Amino acid sequence: MYTPEAIHFGADDLPFVDIGDGSMLKVLQVKRGEGLWIIENIFKAGYEVEKHKHTGPVWGYTTSGAWKYKEYDYVNRAGSFLYEPAGSVHTLQCIEDDTRVWFHMHGSNINLDADDNITSVVDGELTLEFYYAMCEAQGLPRPRVLVE
Amino acid sequence: MYTPEAIHFGADDLPFVDIGDGSMLKVLQVKRGEGLWIIENIFKAGYEVEKHKHTGPVWGYTTSGAWKYKEYDYVNRAGSFLYEPAGSVHTLQCIEDDTRVWFHMHGSNINLDADDNITSVVDGELTLEFYYAMCEAQGLPRPRVLVE
Amino acid sequence: MYTPEAIHFGADDLPFVDIGDGSMLKVLQVKRGEGLWIIENIFKAGYEVEKHKHTGPVWGYTTSGAWKYKEYDYVNRAGSFLYEPAGSVHTLQCIEDDTRVWFHMHGSNINLDADDNITSVVDGELTLEFYYAMCEAQGLPRPRVLVE
Amino acid sequence: MYTPEAIHFGADDLPFVDIGDGSMLKVLQVKRGEGLWIIENIFKAGYEVEKHKHTGPVWGYTTSGAWKYKEYDYVNRAGSFLYEPAGSVHTLQCIEDDTRVWFHMHGSNINLDADDNITSVVDGELTLEFYYAMCEAQGLPRPRVLVE
Repeated sequence: MYTPEAIHFGADDLPFVDIGDGSMLKVLQVKRGEGLWIIENIFKAGYEVEKHKHTGPVWGYTTSGAWKYKEYDYVNRAGSFLYEPAGSVHTLQCIEDDTRVWFHMHGSNINLDADDNITSVVDGELTLEFYYAMCEAQGLPRPRVLVE
Repeated sequence: MYTPEAIHFGADDLPFVDIGDGSMLKVLQVKRGEGLWIIENIFKAGYEVEKHKHTGPVWGYTTSGAWKYKEYDYVNRAGSFLYEPAGSVHTLQCIEDDTRVWFHMHGSNINLDADDNITSVVDGELTLEFYYAMCEAQGLPRPRVLVE
Repeated sequence: MYTPEAIHFGADDLPFVDIGDGSMLKVLQVKRGEGLWIIENIFKAGYEVEKHKHTGPVWGYTTSGAWKYKEYDYVNRAGSFLYEPAGSVHTLQCIEDDTRVWFHMHGSNINLDADDNITSVVDGELTLEFYYAMCEAQGLPRPRVLVE
Repeated sequence: MYTPEAIHFGADDLPFVDIGDGSMLKVLQVKRGEGLWIIENIFKAGYEVEKHKHTGPVWGYTTSGAWKYKEYDYVNRAGSFLYEPAGSVHTLQCIEDDTRVWFHMHGSNINLDADDNITSVVDGELTLEFYYAMCEAQGLPRPRVLVE
Protein backbone atom coordinates (compact mmCIF):
# COMPACT_ATOMS: atom_id res chain seq x y z
CA MET A 1 0.00 0.00 0.00
CA TYR A 2 1.24 3.44 -0.95
CA THR A 3 1.71 5.66 2.12
CA PRO A 4 3.00 9.15 1.37
CA GLU A 5 5.18 11.11 3.79
CA ALA A 6 4.65 14.65 4.97
CA ILE A 7 7.12 17.13 3.45
CA HIS A 8 8.80 19.72 5.68
CA PHE A 9 10.70 22.89 4.84
CA GLY A 10 12.47 24.60 7.70
CA ALA A 11 12.67 28.40 7.69
CA ASP A 12 16.07 28.33 5.94
CA ASP A 13 15.60 25.41 3.56
CA LEU A 14 14.61 27.60 0.62
CA PRO A 15 16.10 31.00 -0.15
CA PHE A 16 14.29 34.31 -0.41
CA VAL A 17 14.88 36.35 -3.57
CA ASP A 18 14.52 40.09 -3.97
CA ILE A 19 11.39 41.16 -5.85
CA GLY A 20 12.26 44.87 -5.94
CA ASP A 21 13.14 47.47 -3.30
CA GLY A 22 14.26 44.79 -0.84
CA SER A 23 10.95 42.96 -0.56
CA MET A 24 11.43 39.23 -0.75
CA LEU A 25 9.80 36.08 -2.15
CA LYS A 26 10.12 32.36 -1.53
CA VAL A 27 8.09 29.75 -3.44
CA LEU A 28 7.33 26.68 -1.33
CA GLN A 29 4.90 24.59 -3.34
CA VAL A 30 3.27 24.52 -6.78
CA LYS A 31 0.67 21.87 -7.61
CA ARG A 32 0.49 22.59 -11.30
CA GLY A 33 -2.59 20.56 -12.15
CA GLU A 34 -4.50 22.06 -9.24
CA GLY A 35 -3.44 25.65 -9.81
CA LEU A 36 -2.24 25.70 -6.18
CA TRP A 37 0.76 27.81 -5.22
CA ILE A 38 2.15 28.61 -1.79
CA ILE A 39 4.66 31.39 -1.27
CA GLU A 40 6.15 33.37 1.59
CA ASN A 41 6.85 37.09 1.33
CA ILE A 42 8.80 39.56 3.41
CA PHE A 43 7.56 42.99 2.38
CA LYS A 44 9.06 46.39 3.11
CA ALA A 45 6.89 49.34 4.08
CA GLY A 46 5.49 50.91 0.91
CA TYR A 47 5.51 47.73 -1.16
CA GLU A 48 2.35 47.43 -3.27
CA VAL A 49 0.74 44.65 -5.26
CA GLU A 50 -1.47 46.11 -7.97
CA LYS A 51 -5.21 45.56 -7.87
CA HIS A 52 -6.05 41.98 -8.74
CA LYS A 53 -8.95 39.56 -8.80
CA HIS A 54 -8.54 35.95 -7.67
CA THR A 55 -9.95 33.07 -9.71
CA GLY A 56 -9.78 30.67 -6.75
CA PRO A 57 -9.74 30.92 -2.96
CA VAL A 58 -6.67 32.32 -1.19
CA TRP A 59 -5.53 32.36 2.43
CA GLY A 60 -2.99 34.69 4.05
CA TYR A 61 -1.20 33.84 7.29
CA THR A 62 0.71 36.84 8.65
CA THR A 63 3.54 36.39 11.14
CA SER A 64 5.07 39.87 11.53
CA GLY A 65 4.72 43.50 10.45
CA ALA A 66 1.58 45.13 9.08
CA TRP A 67 -0.19 45.24 5.72
CA LYS A 68 -3.66 45.90 4.40
CA TYR A 69 -5.83 45.95 1.37
CA LYS A 70 -6.46 49.48 0.15
CA GLU A 71 -10.15 48.59 -0.23
CA TYR A 72 -10.67 47.55 3.42
CA ASP A 73 -9.86 49.10 6.80
CA TYR A 74 -8.50 46.15 8.78
CA VAL A 75 -4.77 45.61 9.10
CA ASN A 76 -3.06 42.23 8.95
CA ARG A 77 -0.52 41.83 11.75
CA ALA A 78 1.26 38.92 13.45
CA GLY A 79 -1.34 36.25 14.08
CA SER A 80 -3.83 37.52 11.48
CA PHE A 81 -5.82 35.06 9.41
CA LEU A 82 -7.19 36.16 6.04
CA TYR A 83 -9.60 34.33 3.73
CA GLU A 84 -10.00 35.71 0.21
CA PRO A 85 -12.86 34.01 -1.67
CA ALA A 86 -12.61 33.44 -5.40
CA GLY A 87 -13.77 36.61 -7.10
CA SER A 88 -12.45 38.98 -4.45
CA VAL A 89 -10.61 42.07 -5.73
CA HIS A 90 -8.08 44.17 -3.82
CA THR A 91 -4.79 46.08 -3.78
CA LEU A 92 -2.09 45.08 -1.30
CA GLN A 93 -0.23 47.81 0.59
CA CYS A 94 2.55 47.09 3.04
CA ILE A 95 2.67 49.39 6.06
CA GLU A 96 5.69 48.21 8.06
CA ASP A 97 9.08 46.73 7.24
CA ASP A 98 9.66 43.02 7.84
CA THR A 99 6.05 42.12 7.09
CA ARG A 100 5.97 38.35 6.67
CA VAL A 101 3.06 36.47 5.13
CA TRP A 102 2.42 32.98 3.80
CA PHE A 103 -0.02 33.06 0.89
CA HIS A 104 -1.82 29.79 0.16
CA MET A 105 -3.38 30.40 -3.26
CA HIS A 106 -5.62 28.61 -5.72
CA GLY A 107 -5.89 29.92 -9.25
CA SER A 108 -4.54 33.08 -10.82
CA ASN A 109 -4.22 36.75 -9.99
CA ILE A 110 -5.91 38.75 -12.72
CA ASN A 111 -4.28 42.16 -12.49
CA LEU A 112 -6.48 45.16 -13.18
CA ASP A 113 -5.91 48.83 -13.89
CA ALA A 114 -7.97 51.70 -12.42
CA ASP A 115 -10.72 51.05 -14.97
CA ASP A 116 -10.68 47.28 -14.32
CA ASN A 117 -9.02 46.47 -17.63
CA ILE A 118 -6.85 43.37 -17.43
CA THR A 119 -3.17 44.27 -17.45
CA SER A 120 -1.68 40.82 -16.87
CA VAL A 121 -2.29 37.46 -15.24
CA VAL A 122 0.06 35.93 -12.67
CA ASP A 123 -0.09 32.31 -11.58
CA GLY A 124 1.96 29.71 -9.77
CA GLU A 125 3.79 28.56 -12.87
CA LEU A 126 4.95 32.07 -13.80
CA THR A 127 5.94 32.77 -10.22
CA LEU A 128 7.92 29.53 -10.04
CA GLU A 129 9.79 30.37 -13.26
CA PHE A 130 10.54 33.83 -11.88
CA TYR A 131 11.77 32.37 -8.60
CA TYR A 132 14.05 29.87 -10.36
CA ALA A 133 15.43 32.63 -12.59
CA MET A 134 16.11 34.97 -9.67
CA CYS A 135 17.86 32.20 -7.75
CA GLU A 136 20.04 31.48 -10.78
CA ALA A 137 20.80 35.18 -11.26
CA GLN A 138 21.95 35.33 -7.65
CA GLY A 139 24.23 32.33 -8.11
CA LEU A 140 22.08 30.09 -5.95
CA PRO A 141 21.47 26.43 -6.76
CA ARG A 142 17.99 25.59 -8.06
CA PRO A 143 15.81 25.43 -4.93
CA ARG A 144 13.94 22.21 -4.18
CA VAL A 145 10.46 23.70 -4.43
CA LEU A 146 7.71 21.13 -3.94
CA VAL A 147 6.54 20.95 -7.56
CA GLU A 148 4.21 18.34 -9.01
CA MET B 1 -24.79 17.51 14.86
CA TYR B 2 -25.11 19.09 11.43
CA THR B 3 -25.65 16.46 8.71
CA PRO B 4 -26.05 17.86 5.21
CA GLU B 5 -28.16 16.19 2.54
CA ALA B 6 -27.14 15.33 -0.98
CA ILE B 7 -28.73 17.58 -3.62
CA HIS B 8 -30.22 16.07 -6.76
CA PHE B 9 -31.25 17.64 -10.05
CA GLY B 10 -33.12 15.42 -12.47
CA ALA B 11 -32.54 15.90 -16.19
CA ASP B 12 -35.50 18.29 -16.46
CA ASP B 13 -35.22 20.18 -13.17
CA LEU B 14 -33.29 23.08 -14.67
CA PRO B 15 -33.90 24.51 -18.14
CA PHE B 16 -31.44 24.76 -21.00
CA VAL B 17 -31.02 28.18 -22.61
CA ASP B 18 -29.82 28.93 -26.12
CA ILE B 19 -26.24 30.23 -26.32
CA GLY B 20 -26.31 30.91 -30.04
CA ASP B 21 -27.11 28.83 -33.13
CA GLY B 22 -29.18 26.38 -31.11
CA SER B 23 -26.40 25.20 -28.77
CA MET B 24 -27.60 25.06 -25.19
CA LEU B 25 -26.42 25.73 -21.64
CA LYS B 26 -27.62 24.77 -18.18
CA VAL B 27 -25.86 25.92 -14.99
CA LEU B 28 -26.13 23.37 -12.21
CA GLN B 29 -23.85 24.57 -9.42
CA VAL B 30 -21.68 27.55 -8.54
CA LYS B 31 -19.57 27.54 -5.39
CA ARG B 32 -18.57 31.17 -5.49
CA GLY B 33 -15.88 31.13 -2.83
CA GLU B 34 -14.27 28.07 -4.39
CA GLY B 35 -14.44 29.26 -7.97
CA LEU B 36 -16.25 25.99 -8.79
CA TRP B 37 -18.86 25.90 -11.53
CA ILE B 38 -20.66 22.96 -13.09
CA ILE B 39 -22.60 23.27 -16.31
CA GLU B 40 -24.13 21.04 -18.94
CA ASN B 41 -24.01 21.86 -22.62
CA ILE B 42 -25.75 20.52 -25.69
CA PHE B 43 -23.67 21.64 -28.65
CA LYS B 44 -24.54 21.63 -32.32
CA ALA B 45 -22.03 20.58 -34.96
CA GLY B 46 -19.80 23.54 -35.76
CA TYR B 47 -20.08 25.20 -32.36
CA GLU B 48 -16.74 26.56 -31.19
CA VAL B 49 -15.39 27.87 -27.89
CA GLU B 50 -12.48 30.21 -28.52
CA LYS B 51 -9.00 29.27 -27.32
CA HIS B 52 -8.77 29.53 -23.55
CA LYS B 53 -6.47 28.72 -20.67
CA HIS B 54 -7.81 27.30 -17.42
CA THR B 55 -6.67 28.66 -14.05
CA GLY B 56 -7.86 25.56 -12.19
CA PRO B 57 -8.54 21.91 -13.02
CA VAL B 58 -11.52 20.98 -15.19
CA TRP B 59 -13.24 17.71 -16.00
CA GLY B 60 -15.51 16.92 -18.94
CA TYR B 61 -18.00 14.04 -18.95
CA THR B 62 -19.47 13.46 -22.41
CA THR B 63 -22.73 11.57 -22.85
CA SER B 64 -23.55 11.90 -26.57
CA GLY B 65 -22.29 13.29 -29.85
CA ALA B 66 -18.68 14.14 -30.68
CA TRP B 67 -16.34 17.07 -29.96
CA LYS B 68 -12.63 17.69 -29.80
CA TYR B 69 -9.98 20.23 -28.99
CA LYS B 70 -8.43 21.66 -32.12
CA GLU B 71 -5.00 21.16 -30.55
CA TYR B 72 -5.38 17.40 -29.98
CA ASP B 73 -6.45 14.46 -32.15
CA TYR B 74 -8.71 12.48 -29.81
CA VAL B 75 -12.48 12.88 -30.01
CA ASN B 76 -14.79 13.00 -27.00
CA ARG B 77 -17.82 10.75 -27.49
CA ALA B 78 -20.44 9.14 -25.25
CA GLY B 79 -18.59 7.69 -22.27
CA SER B 80 -15.47 9.83 -22.69
CA PHE B 81 -13.68 11.18 -19.62
CA LEU B 82 -11.54 14.28 -19.94
CA TYR B 83 -9.18 15.83 -17.38
CA GLU B 84 -7.87 19.31 -18.12
CA PRO B 85 -5.14 20.35 -15.67
CA ALA B 86 -4.83 23.98 -14.59
CA GLY B 87 -2.75 25.75 -17.20
CA SER B 88 -4.00 23.72 -20.15
CA VAL B 89 -4.91 25.69 -23.29
CA HIS B 90 -7.26 24.58 -26.07
CA THR B 91 -10.04 25.45 -28.53
CA LEU B 92 -13.29 23.48 -28.41
CA GLN B 93 -14.85 22.33 -31.69
CA CYS B 94 -18.12 20.44 -31.85
CA ILE B 95 -18.31 17.78 -34.56
CA GLU B 96 -21.81 16.33 -34.26
CA ASP B 97 -25.24 17.66 -33.30
CA ASP B 98 -26.66 16.79 -29.88
CA THR B 99 -23.24 16.66 -28.24
CA ARG B 100 -23.87 16.63 -24.50
CA VAL B 101 -21.17 17.30 -21.93
CA TRP B 102 -21.03 18.08 -18.23
CA PHE B 103 -18.15 20.41 -17.43
CA HIS B 104 -16.95 20.37 -13.81
CA MET B 105 -14.71 23.45 -13.61
CA HIS B 106 -12.47 25.17 -11.09
CA GLY B 107 -11.33 28.72 -11.78
CA SER B 108 -11.69 30.87 -14.87
CA ASN B 109 -11.38 30.54 -18.62
CA ILE B 110 -8.86 33.08 -19.84
CA ASN B 111 -9.78 33.58 -23.49
CA LEU B 112 -6.91 34.13 -25.90
CA ASP B 113 -6.59 35.36 -29.47
CA ALA B 114 -4.28 33.83 -32.08
CA ASP B 115 -1.30 35.69 -30.58
CA ASP B 116 -2.24 34.63 -27.05
CA ASN B 117 -3.41 38.09 -26.04
CA ILE B 118 -6.17 38.00 -23.45
CA THR B 119 -9.52 38.87 -24.99
CA SER B 120 -11.76 38.22 -21.99
CA VAL B 121 -12.16 36.13 -18.86
CA VAL B 122 -15.20 33.93 -18.18
CA ASP B 123 -15.98 32.44 -14.79
CA GLY B 124 -18.81 30.80 -12.91
CA GLU B 125 -20.25 34.06 -11.65
CA LEU B 126 -20.49 35.60 -15.12
CA THR B 127 -21.95 32.40 -16.52
CA LEU B 128 -24.54 32.28 -13.76
CA GLU B 129 -25.58 35.88 -14.43
CA PHE B 130 -25.86 35.09 -18.12
CA TYR B 131 -27.92 31.98 -17.41
CA TYR B 132 -30.30 33.88 -15.13
CA ALA B 133 -30.66 36.64 -17.72
CA MET B 134 -31.37 34.21 -20.55
CA CYS B 135 -33.98 32.41 -18.47
CA GLU B 136 -35.65 35.73 -17.69
CA ALA B 137 -35.53 36.75 -21.35
CA GLN B 138 -37.26 33.50 -22.25
CA GLY B 139 -39.98 34.10 -19.68
CA LEU B 140 -38.77 31.28 -17.44
CA PRO B 141 -38.81 31.55 -13.64
CA ARG B 142 -35.39 31.98 -12.01
CA PRO B 143 -33.91 28.47 -11.95
CA ARG B 144 -32.90 27.00 -8.58
CA VAL B 145 -29.19 26.66 -9.39
CA LEU B 146 -27.15 25.34 -6.48
CA VAL B 147 -25.41 28.59 -5.54
CA GLU B 148 -23.44 29.23 -2.38
CA MET C 1 6.96 27.57 -20.02
CA TYR C 2 5.29 24.37 -18.86
CA THR C 3 1.93 23.82 -20.60
CA PRO C 4 0.12 20.64 -19.61
CA GLU C 5 -2.15 18.73 -21.97
CA ALA C 6 -5.67 17.56 -21.32
CA ILE C 7 -5.94 13.79 -20.81
CA HIS C 8 -8.70 11.86 -22.53
CA PHE C 9 -10.05 8.35 -21.96
CA GLY C 10 -12.53 7.04 -24.49
CA ALA C 11 -15.32 4.76 -23.30
CA ASP C 12 -13.25 1.64 -24.05
CA ASP C 13 -9.77 2.80 -23.05
CA LEU C 14 -9.96 1.31 -19.56
CA PRO C 15 -11.64 -2.01 -18.72
CA PHE C 16 -14.51 -2.57 -16.33
CA VAL C 17 -14.00 -5.24 -13.65
CA ASP C 18 -16.69 -7.19 -11.85
CA ILE C 19 -17.30 -6.08 -8.26
CA GLY C 20 -19.79 -8.83 -7.44
CA ASP C 21 -23.03 -10.05 -9.01
CA GLY C 22 -22.15 -8.56 -12.38
CA SER C 23 -21.90 -4.93 -11.25
CA MET C 24 -18.84 -3.25 -12.69
CA LEU C 25 -16.11 -0.75 -11.79
CA LYS C 26 -13.58 1.29 -13.71
CA VAL C 27 -11.08 3.62 -12.02
CA LEU C 28 -10.25 6.63 -14.17
CA GLN C 29 -8.18 8.97 -11.99
CA VAL C 30 -6.58 9.04 -8.55
CA LYS C 31 -4.85 12.18 -7.31
CA ARG C 32 -3.26 10.65 -4.25
CA GLY C 33 -2.13 13.82 -2.51
CA GLU C 34 -5.54 15.43 -3.00
CA GLY C 35 -7.58 12.43 -1.97
CA LEU C 36 -9.41 12.73 -5.31
CA TRP C 37 -10.70 9.62 -7.06
CA ILE C 38 -12.92 9.30 -10.10
CA ILE C 39 -14.60 6.03 -11.02
CA GLU C 40 -17.35 4.79 -13.29
CA ASN C 41 -19.78 2.09 -12.24
CA ILE C 42 -22.31 -0.05 -14.05
CA PHE C 43 -24.66 -1.39 -11.39
CA LYS C 44 -27.21 -4.16 -11.63
CA ALA C 45 -30.64 -3.86 -10.04
CA GLY C 46 -30.36 -4.78 -6.36
CA TYR C 47 -26.74 -3.73 -5.96
CA GLU C 48 -26.19 -1.91 -2.66
CA VAL C 49 -23.36 0.17 -1.21
CA GLU C 50 -23.50 0.09 2.57
CA LYS C 51 -24.23 3.25 4.52
CA HIS C 52 -21.27 5.60 4.42
CA LYS C 53 -20.26 9.12 5.34
CA HIS C 54 -18.09 11.22 3.03
CA THR C 55 -15.13 13.18 4.35
CA GLY C 56 -15.02 15.42 1.28
CA PRO C 57 -17.44 16.54 -1.44
CA VAL C 58 -18.64 14.07 -4.06
CA TRP C 59 -20.47 14.44 -7.35
CA GLY C 60 -22.45 11.79 -9.24
CA TYR C 61 -23.20 12.02 -12.96
CA THR C 62 -25.70 9.37 -14.05
CA THR C 63 -26.02 8.34 -17.69
CA SER C 64 -28.43 5.39 -17.67
CA GLY C 65 -30.61 3.25 -15.43
CA ALA C 66 -31.96 4.23 -12.00
CA TRP C 67 -30.55 4.35 -8.46
CA LYS C 68 -31.29 6.13 -5.23
CA TYR C 69 -30.16 6.68 -1.70
CA LYS C 70 -32.30 4.76 0.76
CA GLU C 71 -32.47 7.91 2.91
CA TYR C 72 -33.98 10.13 0.19
CA ASP C 73 -36.91 9.82 -2.22
CA TYR C 74 -35.46 11.14 -5.47
CA VAL C 75 -34.18 8.74 -8.12
CA ASN C 76 -31.03 9.30 -10.18
CA ARG C 77 -31.66 8.57 -13.85
CA ALA C 78 -29.96 9.43 -17.15
CA GLY C 79 -29.06 13.11 -16.99
CA SER C 80 -29.22 13.38 -13.19
CA PHE C 81 -26.72 15.55 -11.36
CA LEU C 82 -25.96 14.80 -7.71
CA TYR C 83 -23.90 16.83 -5.23
CA GLU C 84 -23.00 15.15 -1.94
CA PRO C 85 -21.45 17.61 0.51
CA ALA C 86 -18.73 16.46 2.90
CA GLY C 87 -20.43 14.98 5.94
CA SER C 88 -23.41 13.57 4.04
CA VAL C 89 -24.45 10.00 4.95
CA HIS C 90 -26.42 7.58 2.77
CA THR C 91 -26.93 4.04 1.46
CA LEU C 92 -26.86 3.42 -2.28
CA GLN C 93 -29.50 1.15 -3.82
CA CYS C 94 -29.59 0.30 -7.49
CA ILE C 95 -33.07 -0.03 -8.98
CA GLU C 96 -32.48 -0.95 -12.63
CA ASP C 97 -29.91 -2.96 -14.55
CA ASP C 98 -27.30 -1.12 -16.59
CA THR C 99 -27.22 1.85 -14.24
CA ARG C 100 -24.16 3.88 -15.18
CA VAL C 101 -22.66 6.60 -12.98
CA TRP C 102 -19.44 8.57 -12.84
CA PHE C 103 -18.50 9.37 -9.25
CA HIS C 104 -16.12 12.30 -8.78
CA MET C 105 -15.00 11.96 -5.15
CA HIS C 106 -12.87 13.81 -2.66
CA GLY C 107 -11.83 12.05 0.53
CA SER C 108 -12.91 8.72 1.98
CA ASN C 109 -16.06 6.70 2.45
CA ILE C 110 -16.45 5.92 6.14
CA ASN C 111 -18.67 2.85 6.17
CA LEU C 112 -21.17 2.61 9.01
CA ASP C 113 -23.36 -0.14 10.45
CA ALA C 114 -26.98 0.33 11.57
CA ASP C 115 -25.78 1.88 14.85
CA ASP C 116 -23.32 4.17 13.04
CA ASN C 117 -20.27 2.26 14.21
CA ILE C 118 -17.42 2.41 11.70
CA THR C 119 -17.02 -0.88 9.87
CA SER C 120 -14.33 0.14 7.38
CA VAL C 121 -12.94 3.05 5.38
CA VAL C 122 -12.63 3.03 1.60
CA ASP C 123 -10.58 5.55 -0.36
CA GLY C 124 -9.10 6.08 -3.78
CA GLU C 125 -5.87 4.28 -3.00
CA LEU C 126 -7.62 1.13 -1.80
CA THR C 127 -9.97 1.21 -4.77
CA LEU C 128 -7.07 1.60 -7.17
CA GLU C 129 -5.26 -1.38 -5.64
CA PHE C 130 -8.46 -3.42 -5.88
CA TYR C 131 -8.92 -2.39 -9.51
CA TYR C 132 -5.35 -3.32 -10.44
CA ALA C 133 -5.72 -6.68 -8.68
CA MET C 134 -9.00 -7.48 -10.39
CA CYS C 135 -7.54 -6.60 -13.78
CA GLU C 136 -4.58 -8.88 -13.10
CA ALA C 137 -6.86 -11.68 -11.92
CA GLN C 138 -8.78 -11.38 -15.19
CA GLY C 139 -5.58 -11.58 -17.22
CA LEU C 140 -5.79 -7.96 -18.30
CA PRO C 141 -2.73 -5.74 -18.63
CA ARG C 142 -2.36 -3.08 -15.91
CA PRO C 143 -4.71 -0.28 -16.96
CA ARG C 144 -3.28 3.19 -17.52
CA VAL C 145 -5.27 4.90 -14.78
CA LEU C 146 -4.41 8.56 -14.39
CA VAL C 147 -2.48 8.31 -11.12
CA GLU C 148 -0.33 11.02 -9.60
CA MET D 1 -22.22 41.53 -10.19
CA TYR D 2 -21.47 39.71 -6.96
CA THR D 3 -18.05 40.64 -5.56
CA PRO D 4 -17.14 38.96 -2.29
CA GLU D 5 -14.93 40.58 0.34
CA ALA D 6 -11.91 39.07 2.01
CA ILE D 7 -12.52 38.10 5.65
CA HIS D 8 -9.95 38.99 8.30
CA PHE D 9 -9.48 37.75 11.85
CA GLY D 10 -6.92 39.56 13.96
CA ALA D 11 -4.92 37.57 16.49
CA ASP D 12 -7.42 38.37 19.27
CA ASP D 13 -10.71 38.23 17.35
CA LEU D 14 -11.45 34.65 18.31
CA PRO D 15 -10.66 33.10 21.71
CA PHE D 16 -8.44 30.12 22.42
CA VAL D 17 -9.95 27.33 24.51
CA ASP D 18 -8.09 24.80 26.63
CA ILE D 19 -7.91 21.31 25.11
CA GLY D 20 -6.25 19.69 28.14
CA ASP D 21 -3.10 20.39 30.13
CA GLY D 22 -3.04 24.02 29.02
CA SER D 23 -2.73 23.40 25.29
CA MET D 24 -5.07 25.62 23.32
CA LEU D 25 -7.33 25.58 20.26
CA LYS D 26 -9.01 28.20 18.11
CA VAL D 27 -11.24 27.34 15.13
CA LEU D 28 -11.04 29.94 12.38
CA GLN D 29 -12.94 28.50 9.43
CA VAL D 30 -15.08 25.50 8.53
CA LYS D 31 -16.32 25.00 4.98
CA ARG D 32 -18.70 22.19 5.72
CA GLY D 33 -19.45 21.11 2.17
CA GLU D 34 -15.77 21.06 1.29
CA GLY D 35 -14.58 19.29 4.43
CA LEU D 36 -12.16 22.19 4.95
CA TRP D 37 -11.25 23.28 8.48
CA ILE D 38 -8.64 25.74 9.65
CA ILE D 39 -7.53 25.92 13.27
CA GLU D 40 -4.74 27.43 15.33
CA ASN D 41 -3.15 25.60 18.22
CA ILE D 42 -0.82 26.60 21.03
CA PHE D 43 0.67 23.38 22.34
CA LYS D 44 2.61 22.77 25.55
CA ALA D 45 5.68 20.55 25.64
CA GLY D 46 4.59 16.94 25.92
CA TYR D 47 1.23 17.40 24.17
CA GLU D 48 0.49 14.52 21.81
CA VAL D 49 -2.04 13.92 19.07
CA GLU D 50 -2.63 10.21 18.59
CA LYS D 51 -1.60 8.52 15.36
CA HIS D 52 -3.96 9.50 12.55
CA LYS D 53 -4.38 9.21 8.80
CA HIS D 54 -5.61 12.14 6.73
CA THR D 55 -8.28 11.68 4.07
CA GLY D 56 -7.40 14.97 2.35
CA PRO D 57 -4.36 17.24 2.10
CA VAL D 58 -3.24 19.24 5.13
CA TRP D 59 -0.80 22.11 5.60
CA GLY D 60 0.88 23.24 8.83
CA TYR D 61 2.32 26.72 9.29
CA THR D 62 4.39 26.97 12.49
CA THR D 63 5.12 30.32 14.09
CA SER D 64 6.82 29.47 17.40
CA GLY D 65 8.10 26.60 19.54
CA ALA D 66 8.97 23.12 18.30
CA TRP D 67 7.03 19.98 17.40
CA LYS D 68 7.52 16.90 15.30
CA TYR D 69 5.91 13.76 14.04
CA LYS D 70 7.13 10.71 15.91
CA GLU D 71 7.56 8.93 12.56
CA TYR D 72 9.96 11.53 11.07
CA ASP D 73 13.16 13.23 12.27
CA TYR D 74 12.61 16.84 11.22
CA VAL D 75 11.34 19.40 13.73
CA ASN D 76 8.81 22.10 12.92
CA ARG D 77 9.91 25.47 14.31
CA ALA D 78 9.04 29.13 13.67
CA GLY D 79 8.91 29.57 9.89
CA SER D 80 8.43 25.88 9.09
CA PHE D 81 6.13 24.84 6.25
CA LEU D 82 4.60 21.37 6.28
CA TYR D 83 2.61 19.61 3.56
CA GLU D 84 0.79 16.42 4.52
CA PRO D 85 -0.64 14.63 1.48
CA ALA D 86 -3.91 12.74 1.76
CA GLY D 87 -3.10 9.27 3.05
CA SER D 88 -0.20 10.35 5.25
CA VAL D 89 -0.08 8.83 8.77
CA HIS D 90 1.70 10.26 11.79
CA THR D 91 1.69 11.04 15.52
CA LEU D 92 2.17 14.61 16.67
CA GLN D 93 4.51 15.30 19.61
CA CYS D 94 5.08 18.77 21.00
CA ILE D 95 8.64 19.46 22.18
CA GLU D 96 8.52 23.02 23.52
CA ASP D 97 5.97 25.19 25.30
CA ASP D 98 4.21 27.92 23.34
CA THR D 99 4.32 25.99 20.08
CA ARG D 100 1.96 27.77 17.71
CA VAL D 101 0.70 26.24 14.47
CA TRP D 102 -2.01 27.00 11.94
CA PHE D 103 -3.41 23.79 10.46
CA HIS D 104 -5.16 24.15 7.10
CA MET D 105 -6.97 20.82 6.69
CA HIS D 106 -9.10 19.03 4.13
CA GLY D 107 -11.02 15.94 5.18
CA SER D 108 -10.93 13.94 8.39
CA ASN D 109 -8.38 12.60 10.84
CA ILE D 110 -8.84 8.86 11.12
CA ASN D 111 -7.32 8.02 14.50
CA LEU D 112 -5.49 4.71 14.75
CA ASP D 113 -4.20 2.55 17.59
CA ALA D 114 -0.85 0.76 17.63
CA ASP D 115 -2.27 -2.00 15.41
CA ASP D 116 -3.82 0.52 13.01
CA ASN D 117 -7.36 -0.19 14.15
CA ILE D 118 -9.61 2.84 13.85
CA THR D 119 -10.35 4.34 17.27
CA SER D 120 -12.29 7.42 16.15
CA VAL D 121 -12.66 9.98 13.38
CA VAL D 122 -12.29 13.72 13.93
CA ASP D 123 -13.39 16.32 11.41
CA GLY D 124 -14.10 20.03 11.14
CA GLU D 125 -17.72 19.72 12.20
CA LEU D 126 -16.90 17.83 15.40
CA THR D 127 -14.09 20.23 16.18
CA LEU D 128 -16.37 23.21 15.64
CA GLU D 129 -19.00 21.75 17.99
CA PHE D 130 -16.29 21.12 20.58
CA TYR D 131 -14.98 24.66 20.22
CA TYR D 132 -18.45 26.19 20.60
CA ALA D 133 -19.11 24.02 23.67
CA MET D 134 -15.80 24.93 25.31
CA CYS D 135 -16.43 28.62 24.71
CA GLU D 136 -19.88 28.30 26.26
CA ALA D 137 -18.48 26.39 29.24
CA GLN D 138 -16.00 29.19 29.77
CA GLY D 139 -18.75 31.79 29.70
CA LEU D 140 -17.60 33.22 26.38
CA PRO D 141 -20.04 34.42 23.71
CA ARG D 142 -20.33 32.16 20.66
CA PRO D 143 -17.29 33.01 18.52
CA ARG D 144 -17.86 34.25 14.97
CA VAL D 145 -16.08 31.36 13.26
CA LEU D 146 -16.21 31.58 9.48
CA VAL D 147 -18.71 28.76 8.89
CA GLU D 148 -20.49 28.02 5.64
